[in-house]
Amino acid sequence: MVLELRVPHGEDLAALGPLRPVFLAYVLSFVTLGIFWNNHHHMLSAVDSINGKILWANLHLLFWLSLFPFMTGWMGESHFAPLPVSSYGLISLSAAIAYYILQTVIVAQQGPDSKLAAALGNDLKGKISPVLYLAAIPLAFVERWVAVALYVIVALLWLVPDRRIESAHVR
Amino acid sequence: MVLELRVPHGEDLAALGPLRPVFLAYVLSFVTLGIFWNNHHHMLSAVDSINGKILWANLHLLFWLSLFPFMTGWMGESHFAPLPVSSYGLISLSAAIAYYILQTVIVAQQGPDSKLAAALGNDLKGKISPVLYLAAIPLAFVERWVAVALYVIVALLWLVPDRRIESAHVR
Amino acid sequence: MVLELRVPHGEDLAALGPLRPVFLAYVLSFVTLGIFWNNHHHMLSAVDSINGKILWANLHLLFWLSLFPFMTGWMGESHFAPLPVSSYGLISLSAAIAYYILQTVIVAQQGPDSKLAAALGNDLKGKISPVLYLAAIPLAFVERWVAVALYVIVALLWLVPDRRIESAHVR
Amino acid sequence: MVLELRVPHGEDLAALGPLRPVFLAYVLSFVTLGIFWNNHHHMLSAVDSINGKILWANLHLLFWLSLFPFMTGWMGESHFAPLPVSSYGLISLSAAIAYYILQTVIVAQQGPDSKLAAALGNDLKGKISPVLYLAAIPLAFVERWVAVALYVIVALLWLVPDRRIESAHVR
Repeated sequence: MVLELRVPHGEDLAALGPLRPVFLAYVLSFVTLGIFWNNHHHMLSAVDSINGKILWANLHLLFWLSLFPFMTGWMGESHFAPLPVSSYGLISLSAAIAYYILQTVIVAQQGPDSKLAAALGNDLKGKISPVLYLAAIPLAFVERWVAVALYVIVALLWLVPDRRIESAHVR
Repeated sequence: MVLELRVPHGEDLAALGPLRPVFLAYVLSFVTLGIFWNNHHHMLSAVDSINGKILWANLHLLFWLSLFPFMTGWMGESHFAPLPVSSYGLISLSAAIAYYILQTVIVAQQGPDSKLAAALGNDLKGKISPVLYLAAIPLAFVERWVAVALYVIVALLWLVPDRRIESAHVR
Repeated sequence: MVLELRVPHGEDLAALGPLRPVFLAYVLSFVTLGIFWNNHHHMLSAVDSINGKILWANLHLLFWLSLFPFMTGWMGESHFAPLPVSSYGLISLSAAIAYYILQTVIVAQQGPDSKLAAALGNDLKGKISPVLYLAAIPLAFVERWVAVALYVIVALLWLVPDRRIESAHVR
Repeated sequence: MVLELRVPHGEDLAALGPLRPVFLAYVLSFVTLGIFWNNHHHMLSAVDSINGKILWANLHLLFWLSLFPFMTGWMGESHFAPLPVSSYGLISLSAAIAYYILQTVIVAQQGPDSKLAAALGNDLKGKISPVLYLAAIPLAFVERWVAVALYVIVALLWLVPDRRIESAHVR
């Protein structure tokens, strides 16, 4: 988590005004990264040994997550301009796909009868999120707040932690 | 701990002058964050398994703590102007509440007869701190140094580590 | 991983233009650092006890890796000017040598019959990489893109994780 | 380790010129922090349980170490001006004292017959370092390079890792 908020120059409420969109983007990214981090923690705790494929899939996910501070800053400082908002969706989509790859690699190692595979079940949230991100990418140019709303919806969707893994049981 | 001190441009004592309030804010936040970190370490060491609720309560606490570098910079660079000082209290209060929620979630998992629950006892310090932070928020606009003094008092109050957990024993 | 991308000031595609070389350098360094990190992880997982020599060899490696954010920024922001590109090779070479020293120190501790020693085998990639980096240092002044191509080749060479350690077996 | 090197604006050797003192300070601080970190690692590996006093002594040490990026930047960017050089000694002295306190607290916990107490022996280096730092503080105003030389000497003195702990044995 290396999101950054620049210190404003004034000392009154007016100084905080231009910070509002930056702060909104900060909160959105904090929640999004927190979701990835939490579910990542849940998932990796189910893994007993790490192999090369998992390491690389993990690094791949890290790459996209590492771009969030940049995208967050750009989206916030441009006051949610269409291109930054759309790009934010692209990075989010890439991270979601990278997460899916990591999950697939781990399930492949654990086997189809593993606790993790059973816990994931049909993985509805994991399938809806990329679709919403994908929709947001072009929609940002039509009506950017619809795209932002989609990002918020995905975040809310995931705010319920991955109970599936927590209460895992083979059917 | 990602508090930051900007390098001054001069090379004499005069160059350090404007840094004084920034440094004061730095020390205050270092101690405050250190207190959270230490007690957090104590508390989590009493937890044997982490569930989803604990992860989220932990992330929630992290959110408020992540705003400290920003608030510290703003309070220091504005030379302890009323609004930044008051906002500092708001963030501190939020962090204290988030800490309390995390603690409650962990105690709920551990059970009312757990070592941790007994160790916390009536949790006097945990109840006084938010009250002092709450008082500082409006007081900052009346006399800002009173608010700062309250922050210092809370810090001193906690500088004694949470012995309660260390020497925990069921009554 | 503390590579940094500065937020652009515009909000359209034109604003991203000057960022292109910076982003290219970012990706190259991310992959290079990721390679070091992954193989480092593989190698250290084979170590059961850390002694003073290993700590120092590790710190030495860390020193060169710590210069990557600086070199990455300089190479990208100078639009791959000859001197920065050449210096990037120097730092990469130094890091590769430091990695080799760390590896040698660990093998010395583990013994020539250890799993790690056997796993490393003739260590072809470990010997080719510094040669390519060494070649890139002067070549950057002749034709800088050749040097950059060499950095990319080394990265691709290593993108296959160090299976040698993973599937280690004494011959 | 959050030392920072700012990316220069030019792309030739001349652009690196003003960076020279900054880089010198960077290397000095990297080695100094590395020494603290390594010996800290050695020392803490001898500790089986962490109590409140150790946590606080550790945080106190961390406070002084956290000022190194600031002091390093100031000393380097001021081209080793007397006041920054002297202040660097003050911070180093404070960190050395904080390290000594942490060590004392840990030895107190472990008991005078512990492996650690025996390993530390008469702790010659631990006693010489603060004396040299103390001498450097006023000397910086007389002849700053003498002070810098003292910092380098302390670093070289410690570059030999704390064998005492490594090969610890009760007499």
